[in-house]
Amino acid sequence: MKVLVVGANGQIGRHFVKMLASSDIHTPKAMIRKEEQVSFFNSLGVETVLTSLEGSVEEITEAMKGCDAVVFAAGSGGKTGADKTLLIDLDGAAKTIEAAERTGTERFLMISAINADKRAMWKEDMAHYYVAKHHADNILRASGLVYTIIRPGILTNDSGTGKVLAVEDLDSGEISREDVARVLFNALDNERVFNKTFAVVSGDREIDTALNQL
Amino acid sequence: MKVLVVGANGQIGRHFVKMLASSDIHTPKAMIRKEEQVSFFNSLGVETVLTSLEGSVEEITEAMKGCDAVVFAAGSGGKTGADKTLLIDLDGAAKTIEAAERTGTERFLMISAINADKRAMWKEDMAHYYVAKHHADNILRASGLVYTIIRPGILTNDSGTGKVLAVEDLDSGEISREDVARVLFNALDNERVFNKTFAVVSGDREIDTALNQL
Repeated sequence: MKVLVVGANGQIGRHFVKMLASSDIHTPKAMIRKEEQVSFFNSLGVETVLTSLEGSVEEITEAMKGCDAVVFAAGSGGKTGADKTLLIDLDGAAKTIEAAERTGTERFLMISAINADKRAMWKEDMAHYYVAKHHADNILRASGLVYTIIRPGILTNDSGTGKVLAVEDLDSGEISREDVARVLFNALDNERVFNKTFAVVSGDREIDTALNQL
Repeated sequence: MKVLVVGANGQIGRHFVKMLASSDIHTPKAMIRKEEQVSFFNSLGVETVLTSLEGSVEEITEAMKGCDAVVFAAGSGGKTGADKTLLIDLDGAAKTIEAAERTGTERFLMISAINADKRAMWKEDMAHYYVAKHHADNILRASGLVYTIIRPGILTNDSGTGKVLAVEDLDSGEISREDVARVLFNALDNERVFNKTFAVVSGDREIDTALNQL
């Protein structure tokens, strides 16, 4: 599959693009925002497209043409304000979902957040972020796309172990960004996780085993 | 009908509650956030319930019990940040919609904003507000409720004229808060506007005439 990676320059995005680039079965197309981000992907031999999530649905649709799947790994991050959380994490996701519907790109994987469905667990200083993720997930589920919503625990920069715990309902835990990228990679064409939402943290099962038990 | 007015202490909310209180056919229940807001409603002989939109769906469900309709006229306002826009204008609306579904309160009227469906018209400094309104409207439309989404133009504090222009597609205009409240009042049980979304600005038609032409 040719996979549009939205948020390719993020930390999870870069891990994931590398895995796709070294794969025999999938090919990445890195959707990035800034010209200066191109060289990293060029050095991997990866195609890029410069498109902002603050742009129009038409622009995102154009970026998506020719792709078979979309991975939404973008986020405004902790350094910007809640206004960008609304524009990127919520409306950027909504526009990407609309673009996938328009282009008939049926397969859509979303990086969400653990507890995005549990309002009672949202700490006050992060509540706006969870609101954005919660509703982006709901929009994806209500679409006609073949979705997989992955809700990682607290993200770390540790090296991946390739072993996780993946379950539908889980309150807490940590996982490395590299392992999240590997979960994305293995989930891409695994029918067991089509139209499923699950939490994932570091654990003791091989990723494929963990996904197949969902 | 007994009408739960969410955001009853806002400027549109107060106008609307007064209209309901002086009506022979409808009765308001004012949902407000602070104890010090009670006296205004007591002086009108209007029932109040102290419930925050930042609380749980269960709390809003409790506030809604015994009501036949809900009007969502709440907003975090321009003085707070985008984090509150996410929590009140988007998730507060989403929770109120969930509460209406749980209680079987089928009739739901929403105060939205002109151009909430047109991303290309969103000015940068207000874009986060439009994102919240856009998605709150979409959640309401996707619910099973009998909705009316009213999208006023720029709000003024002028006295109401009772005359408006109400059309599905409109880019600009002004309207007084008192006239918006009157549109809400007349729309409550007018089947012509059930499951409709429309813009409203000041104009030259009587409100009932304008609504019946939608």
